[in-house]
Amino acid sequence: MPQYKAPLRDIQFVMNELLDTETHYQHIPGGEEATPDMVNAIIQEGAKFCEQVLSPLNQTGDQEGCTLENGEVKTPTGFKEAYKQYIEGGWPSMTADEQLGGQGLPGSLSMVMSEMVGTANWSFGMYPGLSHGCLNTLEAHGSEEQKQTYLPKMISGEWTGTMCLTESHCGSDLGIMRSKAEPNSDGSYSISGEKIFISAGDHDMSDNIIHLVLAKLPDAPKGTKGISVFVVPKFIPDENGNPGERNSVSVGSIEHKMGIHGNATCVLNFDGARGFLIGEPHKGLNYMFTFMNIARIGTAIQGLGSAELAFQGSLEYAKDRQAMRSLSGAKNPDGAADPIIVHPDVRRMLMTQKALAEGGRAMIYYAAQQADIATRGQDEDARKEADELLGFLTPIAKAFLTETGVEAANQGMQVLGGHGYISEWGMEQIVRDARIGTIYEGTTGIQALDLLGRKVLMTQGESLKRFTKKVHLFCKEHGDNKQLAEFIEPLAAFNKEWGDLTMKLGSAAMKDREEVGAASYDYLMYSGYGVLAYLWAEMAEVAQRKLEEGTAEEAFYNAKLQTARFYFKRMLPRAKAHADAMISGADNLMDIQEEHFAF
Amino acid sequence: MPQYKAPLRDIQFVMNELLDTETHYQHIPGGEEATPDMVNAIIQEGAKFCEQVLSPLNQTGDQEGCTLENGEVKTPTGFKEAYKQYIEGGWPSMTADEQLGGQGLPGSLSMVMSEMVGTANWSFGMYPGLSHGCLNTLEAHGSEEQKQTYLPKMISGEWTGTMCLTESHCGSDLGIMRSKAEPNSDGSYSISGEKIFISAGDHDMSDNIIHLVLAKLPDAPKGTKGISVFVVPKFIPDENGNPGERNSVSVGSIEHKMGIHGNATCVLNFDGARGFLIGEPHKGLNYMFTFMNIARIGTAIQGLGSAELAFQGSLEYAKDRQAMRSLSGAKNPDGAADPIIVHPDVRRMLMTQKALAEGGRAMIYYAAQQADIATRGQDEDARKEADELLGFLTPIAKAFLTETGVEAANQGMQVLGGHGYISEWGMEQIVRDARIGTIYEGTTGIQALDLLGRKVLMTQGESLKRFTKKVHLFCKEHGDNKQLAEFIEPLAAFNKEWGDLTMKLGSAAMKDREEVGAASYDYLMYSGYGVLAYLWAEMAEVAQRKLEEGTAEEAFYNAKLQTARFYFKRMLPRAKAHADAMISGADNLMDIQEEHFAF
Repeated sequence: MPQYKAPLRDIQFVMNELLDTETHYQHIPGGEEATPDMVNAIIQEGAKFCEQVLSPLNQTGDQEGCTLENGEVKTPTGFKEAYKQYIEGGWPSMTADEQLGGQGLPGSLSMVMSEMVGTANWSFGMYPGLSHGCLNTLEAHGSEEQKQTYLPKMISGEWTGTMCLTESHCGSDLGIMRSKAEPNSDGSYSISGEKIFISAGDHDMSDNIIHLVLAKLPDAPKGTKGISVFVVPKFIPDENGNPGERNSVSVGSIEHKMGIHGNATCVLNFDGARGFLIGEPHKGLNYMFTFMNIARIGTAIQGLGSAELAFQGSLEYAKDRQAMRSLSGAKNPDGAADPIIVHPDVRRMLMTQKALAEGGRAMIYYAAQQADIATRGQDEDARKEADELLGFLTPIAKAFLTETGVEAANQGMQVLGGHGYISEWGMEQIVRDARIGTIYEGTTGIQALDLLGRKVLMTQGESLKRFTKKVHLFCKEHGDNKQLAEFIEPLAAFNKEWGDLTMKLGSAAMKDREEVGAASYDYLMYSGYGVLAYLWAEMAEVAQRKLEEGTAEEAFYNAKLQTARFYFKRMLPRAKAHADAMISGADNLMDIQEEHFAF
Repeated sequence: MPQYKAPLRDIQFVMNELLDTETHYQHIPGGEEATPDMVNAIIQEGAKFCEQVLSPLNQTGDQEGCTLENGEVKTPTGFKEAYKQYIEGGWPSMTADEQLGGQGLPGSLSMVMSEMVGTANWSFGMYPGLSHGCLNTLEAHGSEEQKQTYLPKMISGEWTGTMCLTESHCGSDLGIMRSKAEPNSDGSYSISGEKIFISAGDHDMSDNIIHLVLAKLPDAPKGTKGISVFVVPKFIPDENGNPGERNSVSVGSIEHKMGIHGNATCVLNFDGARGFLIGEPHKGLNYMFTFMNIARIGTAIQGLGSAELAFQGSLEYAKDRQAMRSLSGAKNPDGAADPIIVHPDVRRMLMTQKALAEGGRAMIYYAAQQADIATRGQDEDARKEADELLGFLTPIAKAFLTETGVEAANQGMQVLGGHGYISEWGMEQIVRDARIGTIYEGTTGIQALDLLGRKVLMTQGESLKRFTKKVHLFCKEHGDNKQLAEFIEPLAAFNKEWGDLTMKLGSAAMKDREEVGAASYDYLMYSGYGVLAYLWAEMAEVAQRKLEEGTAEEAFYNAKLQTARFYFKRMLPRAKAHADAMISGADNLMDIQEEHFAF
């Protein structure tokens, strides 16, 4: 397994030089305290923990996996101790409300930590990650009593949480779920049903596990408008707030799955478990969606993390492994062969990973900055605009970065040849772990419909225009800079085409609703390449400026320019294929009859 | 795990209607006996065996894997018995020389069986598959005595074989291998060295295992010109030809790997093992290459098989699983939701797999027909032309079909959503198994260099022209057919561009050798989309003709046309991205310095 090394220089580049996080934090309540020195210290400390504690548990966690003993899940050796250190480091409380025991730092800062945790050990990171989603929902929609009961212990990390949505017959379509909630005389509810695919559904790392469970009340309307959300603690807190009576929720089994073996994916049986309604009846799905954007950005991190870790592992191998001679003459004449990094096709695979890791980082931090403003911005207009921009970026970041994260992981594995396929090297684990990213928290197909249907077409293209306007202004500002023409020109052309294609799809969809679904995947991938092109052009502009100003880090900025160039020359052209496919019409998908797919 | 169902109608379509195998077989010695009735009976029988015996062992084989007990490999439960049935069915001897006990049928017929075996259970299929490669090499280059000693038992399947090439420090670059062969006084050699990644390296299914081992003689020239090949039997045959003395080759370990768990990937230690030189000293690599083209087509089958099995599994699920309503109105109003096959994006994933499986089948059978002619054609010119055409198609089929096979497997898994990630459904196994395809028998990068460097540029484009001429004639012949214009026009345009781009790359390579490696991957993928476009256009032409002539199978031929249309509209455009990337120059890969990939 590659030993993770936090890419601190690049993290700084995106935070400070691309996104000017220092200024940004000054405008966010709680952010004033996040001075550059403090931010730096936090990231350094986090990096150390991820490199030294979490990274060594990544491969062992995969090999050992989780086990179910006497109805309780046992996490892989070392996870429990690592989680203890994670709590002691104060990481769960970093961005939580100060009045509930949190440190009140901006949410985007926790994204940086999430990136490092997730890259070092994704399976581990899912335990606090899921907890975070549960906590956010309780914080926004729970009663004061519920908040006081659960949040301080969840913020401290003593208790963790889950989100229980999926049932065996329904995932994307939660409207048809069967779990039931019957009101009890004391105001609580009896929850019954089987939930599957519950990440971190049970484990031995915390004193209590707080399940958020979607279920239907007896009088529930049909479909998604009849879903309520309940808090169902594994141990019902006693009068002192300590874990009390064991609730009747039990682990049916741990799923055997392709990857993320270090995280327990549970079947949970709720057998008349005591639950407490959150907010109003039948509003459950809305409550879930409140924080879905941020949760999905959290999942997008998996794509970035897969690309980063695969890049680190394959880069090290490519410098070390010797095979064949460079076509342009021996580069290591004293050795038996040249290191494979001299070969252009190996470089193509490395650069693809690099462009996706660094570009993905820029995309996620950019989105996280919008999330800061959307949740804590002082100005109503700014909050609204940031929220809408985040809504536009979220499905792109989630689906595009997890799809390309799988690609990057596969490229990393491919660099190692046969050794990549062998478990010992750890590269195939990255592929197996990454592969869930395009599925959970809404599949790529669901994100694509969300983007094209809900976000773009339902706003008559307004959400797209909000973004393309930014791109347009950037292109205009630097249109005279000849050094940047290789980036600005194709970006400006792309930006125009983006609008044109969207208009075309809008018209087509007016005539045939199926056109939306038929175009959605390609539209999303196309948009992903566009957002990344904008960010790479922005990064190139920063690098170009630094080089012109004079810098002691010429190599760093040159590498940025070279990676931007690689992206524009070798990756952005893929968008053309998506453009052609998206406007090719729904007929080539819908004409074939269901029974004629196979004979 | 999807229960495999041999796609007999499609196999017949490609064999009979696309490739006119009946006429083809009449011109191949041994083929006269392969009458349509006989071919049909063989395929039916093979299909039954694959469906009933091999398919049920696919998932259990993955879960149980191979184990090493007291130095001997134990294959998963049922493999040994299945192999016995495989021998009893006469499958190993189908295409072997009649004088050595074979049935002398054309090689292309065994490809059909290989497809069915490999799709039903790839791990199983590798045991006889590797044996076949060993057998072919011995048949072509072994002495008469060696042939008599080994071939009859290998042809009957009582003994199996391996190919021992890779060492831990070298795979693609065999020139730097370290295994040694010291001459003994009796004319044999003492072979010493460690070989890794030996598929089917040891097992309990046959009485003896015949290893072909690459090693260097004491006086060997440096590099690939100093490699000799030796036959090293696990048990040295006694005077009666039966397994005798145990040779000093031992299994160091079984590799833990991502997939193909049912096949033992061994570390083999040769500790002064007795070996016998094949052919002349130092010619080993040439001998290996003799049958590499056919062996690589064999590996290409894995891509097709992955696409086919993923397609079968995801199609069944998509018809059954219900989620959401069709955007154009409920299609299953009495149910809680519509089957997901109504959704265009699900259809996109299904059609992608279908186009790759059926197109891949056409590509492999087409190549196999060339292999028939190249090895057994009666006319010297035809043999030469077929051999060169096969040489051109081989790296494309191997790399393009395994790359797209991985894509198809991932699409199949994606259709199942979360269930795709769970082992129980068997879809994630297809992804894990498929993933080795782009690595072994020469990685995609190696195939790409072979195609662009050796096959195309070294022949001044002749090998490409041989193929594009066929495409050109086809386009000319059907240029007036308006019904086919949607296929012929883009195909003709592609065909012209293919030549132009190749010329461009040829010029660029004259100035800078790195341009070859920098363009090779994209050139290969581009060429793959081109070959597939040609075959899909040919298939569309057949279907169109049948529909015009009148047929009772309208639905079948319509589906062919619809799939061809999908391919041209939604997949062929990807070639544009590869075209742009391949001519973008080597600089965007080579300019960045080795030490500046990461900071």
